[in-house]
Amino acid sequence: MEKITSKQNSKVKEWAKLKTKKGRHQTGTYLLEGWHLVHEAIMNNEPIKSILVTESELDTVEISGNFQTILITEEIANHIASTVTPQGVFAIVEMDGSKTALPSKLEGAWLLLDQVQDPGNIGTMVRTADAAGFTGVIFGTGSSSRFNPKIVRSMQGSQFHIQLLEMGLADAMTSFLQAGYPVYGTELNPDAKSFKQIKPDKDFALIMGNEGNGMSKNLLTKTTANLYIPIKGKAESLNVAIAAGILMFQLLQ
Amino acid sequence: MEKITSKQNSKVKEWAKLKTKKGRHQTGTYLLEGWHLVHEAIMNNEPIKSILVTESELDTVEISGNFQTILITEEIANHIASTVTPQGVFAIVEMDGSKTALPSKLEGAWLLLDQVQDPGNIGTMVRTADAAGFTGVIFGTGSSSRFNPKIVRSMQGSQFHIQLLEMGLADAMTSFLQAGYPVYGTELNPDAKSFKQIKPDKDFALIMGNEGNGMSKNLLTKTTANLYIPIKGKAESLNVAIAAGILMFQLLQ
Repeated sequence: MEKITSKQNSKVKEWAKLKTKKGRHQTGTYLLEGWHLVHEAIMNNEPIKSILVTESELDTVEISGNFQTILITEEIANHIASTVTPQGVFAIVEMDGSKTALPSKLEGAWLLLDQVQDPGNIGTMVRTADAAGFTGVIFGTGSSSRFNPKIVRSMQGSQFHIQLLEMGLADAMTSFLQAGYPVYGTELNPDAKSFKQIKPDKDFALIMGNEGNGMSKNLLTKTTANLYIPIKGKAESLNVAIAAGILMFQLLQ
Repeated sequence: MEKITSKQNSKVKEWAKLKTKKGRHQTGTYLLEGWHLVHEAIMNNEPIKSILVTESELDTVEISGNFQTILITEEIANHIASTVTPQGVFAIVEMDGSKTALPSKLEGAWLLLDQVQDPGNIGTMVRTADAAGFTGVIFGTGSSSRFNPKIVRSMQGSQFHIQLLEMGLADAMTSFLQAGYPVYGTELNPDAKSFKQIKPDKDFALIMGNEGNGMSKNLLTKTTANLYIPIKGKAESLNVAIAAGILMFQLLQ
C-alpha cells in the first residue's frame, strides 16, 4: 500500500485544492470525507479513484472492493479536510460531468433549486428529497455546486440515492411541462395558492428559490401554479429547507 | 451619549463574556446582535438594559424609545460579537428568569424540545413554530439554552413572538395530559403511528428529540401517541428541524 507522509507531496497538494471549485475542475475530481460517505459511495458504485486513510483508521474501516488505497498521516488528513475534526478516511471521486440533461423518460417527483445559496440548506433539501421519495434534484444555474464540500457533507449520502442534475431551470421547466408535468413554483405571497389546495400526486416538479430573493420572476410566470405556505404567526418567512420539507412531504403521494 | 473606545473598559469585558453561559448568568443578561433583532426586541418591549452602536451605524438605525445608548468602536463591536461580520448594533437584554412554568390556562399548540443540541436546529424550530402559529416552545432540561448566541440569532426574532419556557419535560407532559391535551412523541420507528393519521387540531403538544438519540425512552412511554414520518427513499433519517416543520404544519389546524 502506498504511503504518503509529506504535505509537500504533489498528490497532497492536489487533494488540498479540491476544497475550491478551481481545484475540482482542474482534476475532474472531488473529495468525500468520513466513513459514512465513503462507504455509501462504495456501495453505490461511484467512480472512486483512490481511498485515503490514516493509520489509526485503517483497522476500523472495511474497504470492500479493489480500490487504490493510500495511507496518509494525521497531518495530511487535517490539511486536506474541510471539517475541523476529520475522521481520517477520504475518497477521491470523479465528478460525473454528464449529468446535465433530464432523462428521456421523465418519472416521479423532482425538486428544482433556483439560485439557492446556502450549502447547509441545499444539502438538507437533497437529503429530505431522498427521504420523501423524490426521483431527483436539479441544481439550476446559479445554485451552489453539488461538489462543494459543505454540500457534499450535508447531503449525508443522499447524493448517491437519487439523481442530481445541473442545468438551466427554464429548459428543465419546458421539458417538464411538455411531458405533462405540473410545475409548482413557490413564493412568499399570500395571493399565491395555498399548498394544501394541491392534491398529492406522483409526478410533478417543485421549484424552491433563493434565500433572500425567492424564485426568479421569469420562472414564476411559467409555472402551472405558484404555491404559498400560509404563515400564521409573526415570523416573516420560513427557512427555505423547512419550506421545501413541508411541501415535498405534502405534495408527493 | 456615553462613548467607549477601549476594549479594556470593564463594561466591554462584561459584554464579551456574554458569549458564555457563565458570563450570562453572572450578569443576568444576554446579547442581541444586529438591527433586526434589536428592533424586534424594542417593538416587543423586551427588558433592554442598553443599546450599543458604532458611529457608522448610528445614522442608519432608528432607536425609538428611551434607552441607554452607548457609542462603541468597530474594534469593540468585533470583540463582543459572535458573528464574523457584526452589524454594529447590539442590545444588552435582561434574561427573563421567570419563564420556567406553564401558564395556568393552557391554550394552543406547544413544541417541546427533548435534549435537542444543535443551535441552528433549535433556532429554526422556534422560527418555524412561530410561522406555524404555535403558542410556545419548551426547552427541556438538557436542551441548549435559549440565550446561546447562535440560537438567539437563528430564532430571527421569533423568540419575541411566542412563549419560550425552560422546564423539565416530564412535568410539562403531566400538565398537558391533565389539561386534556394530546401529547405526541416522535420516533424513527415505522411501527409508530404515521403522522398523516392524526387529525389536525388546535390544542396539542409535540415533542422532538435529540439529533442522534431521539426522544428519551421514559417520555416516549407516557405520550398519547408516538408519530413517525414515513421515509420512502434511502435516506436514514430527516434533519430534526425539517421533521418538526413537517409535523407542525400538518398537525396544527
